[in-house]
Amino acid sequence: MANSDCLFCRIASGEIPADIVRSDDDVVSFRDISPQAPTHILIIPRKHISSVTDLSEEDSEVMGRLFLMARDLAEEEGLTEGGYRMVVNAGADAGQTVFHIHLHLLGGRRMGWPPG
Amino acid sequence: MANSDCLFCRIASGEIPADIVRSDDDVVSFRDISPQAPTHILIIPRKHISSVTDLSEEDSEVMGRLFLMARDLAEEEGLTEGGYRMVVNAGADAGQTVFHIHLHLLGGRRMGWPPG
Repeated sequence: MANSDCLFCRIASGEIPADIVRSDDDVVSFRDISPQAPTHILIIPRKHISSVTDLSEEDSEVMGRLFLMARDLAEEEGLTEGGYRMVVNAGADAGQTVFHIHLHLLGGRRMGWPPG
Repeated sequence: MANSDCLFCRIASGEIPADIVRSDDDVVSFRDISPQAPTHILIIPRKHISSVTDLSEEDSEVMGRLFLMARDLAEEEGLTEGGYRMVVNAGADAGQTVFHIHLHLLGGRRMGWPPG
């Protein structure tokens, strides 16, 4: 399931160091190296899936679990009361730079609209 | 599962009209009335869940299915090649205004960073 050429697969396996926040059998989270808010964490499936465009029906469960981890991290980071934004980019127009699905969790400041 | 006081439950049931794009047994999508990009569609679970903060473990499957519908709508809207952004807001700091979970699908223009 892992792709040895993929930066995020290598972070998930521990081969490349990152500021890991939490991980379980299916999902890993770590802090963004270029944070855009006081809290900015990336949440990824361990399974290598390049983009939302490449999702299979069987991936729905793990994709939902990205939100459950976001919920838990928001609580840990003290964001639940104020609020937090979750963002997934697919493709170049959206600014996706690493082609392994990742959900951005941002919080700790008021977020503007439109979302970029 | 529906909440008669909830705008989005009433849209999902057909009680309040909206520009519905696609729907199935569990997920409904309709165009945002204040679009922030050439394509701006909201994708919601039929089940009334106020916010990501209120998710239960059992909701992971339907939350993942929001991404599968986003994938399909992106294809229909011609966004797959260029790219698209998906956003979920939780709470006031993030700008959540309707307390029924909704995933914003935005595309058709280059999206900026940070995402709001």
